[in-house]
Amino acid sequence: MERHFDEELRELNERLLRMAAMAEESVARSVKALVERDKRLAQNVIDSDDEINMLEIEIDELCLRLLALRQPIAKDLRTIASALKINSDLERIGDLSVNIAQRTLSLLEEPLLKPLIDIPRMAELAQKMVKDSLDAFVSQDAELAQAVCRRDDEVDQINDQIFRELLTYMFQDPKNINRSVDLILIGRHLERIADHATNISEDVVYMVKGTTIKHHIQERPDRPRE
Amino acid sequence: MERHFDEELRELNERLLRMAAMAEESVARSVKALVERDKRLAQNVIDSDDEINMLEIEIDELCLRLLALRQPIAKDLRTIASALKINSDLERIGDLSVNIAQRTLSLLEEPLLKPLIDIPRMAELAQKMVKDSLDAFVSQDAELAQAVCRRDDEVDQINDQIFRELLTYMFQDPKNINRSVDLILIGRHLERIADHATNISEDVVYMVKGTTIKHHIQERPDRPRE
Repeated sequence: MERHFDEELRELNERLLRMAAMAEESVARSVKALVERDKRLAQNVIDSDDEINMLEIEIDELCLRLLALRQPIAKDLRTIASALKINSDLERIGDLSVNIAQRTLSLLEEPLLKPLIDIPRMAELAQKMVKDSLDAFVSQDAELAQAVCRRDDEVDQINDQIFRELLTYMFQDPKNINRSVDLILIGRHLERIADHATNISEDVVYMVKGTTIKHHIQERPDRPRE
Repeated sequence: MERHFDEELRELNERLLRMAAMAEESVARSVKALVERDKRLAQNVIDSDDEINMLEIEIDELCLRLLALRQPIAKDLRTIASALKINSDLERIGDLSVNIAQRTLSLLEEPLLKPLIDIPRMAELAQKMVKDSLDAFVSQDAELAQAVCRRDDEVDQINDQIFRELLTYMFQDPKNINRSVDLILIGRHLERIADHATNISEDVVYMVKGTTIKHHIQERPDRPRE
């Protein structure tokens, strides 16, 4: 009993959405663990990364199966090729959440350096970018995807601000150095998560329109950046 | 006049090798600029990233064309799907070199913090990993690819060492903080370059054997790490 190609594509979409939900959840929990100083939650993020990893392999295999059996062309081909790339991006987002959780465990060994305001805000923006980039993929919405790309600048600005503020903490007192470095690295991980959402969105635009916005100076004036 | 599929695959290999050579060169020059305190060379790395970006788009398009026109199956399909992923990894390596060059420009505004020994060594290892991972791709050599994955631990260890050493510099004197943070971030960028080489190698093993070594606990006990 052969299934329809459309149905298989729907299955691919569903799995990617599930993967994205897991990746977003992982980001959210890693930052919640940081803010609420919850060691168990941080450990939980680290432990549950295996599920994301397994799903990545499953999705890769599904994509290859569809390419081999369905021999898609034009937009369907671009969709599956994009799915392969998006899948890698989501897996890295999972890894970056694990990195945040690891830094959190290190931070919890000392008292709170300062109230955390910018990092949770940045995390929220980054998470929303991941969510919207996947929504854009599923609904084939190039405009939404382009809007996600534009929001990347805001995340970069918050990260720069965090970086500068934490440098001043280090200058004030050497006792702040360890914690400041940990927080700088967490800012950097969140920025990378937003970068991956941007990559996903660029792939969505390509998938929908068949033209790339990657590396167009007018679209992404600030890349690559740190 | 139709060309042979083998010839097209050779062309794909050649372009990926060219892309890899450019990415390696970019890593090498960014670290040379750092070590020799050469502002112009750092700027040159930043300026020439566009070439890598253009080649990424070309290779992506070639892969999609091959998938659409040749409708490959089995190993050929895995090869082209791997090429798509490897292409992304190489482009990110180019971005990371730009990040190193940017940090270098910031470092050149102050005198040398300390003689640089570990960072050039780490850069050399990371570059060699990129080179070997692409050689493994072209020669379809799963053993070489697995050897690359194992070398990732060494890079991680050097990075940990750099990190700890620079923390002590910061503790000694607040005047060292800016430069220490820049060097920590450069270490982190080099570590990510080695991670991308590891990703490429994992894709090569999959391509050759048709089974994945990704996320197998026994193969990669330390991932994800920072």
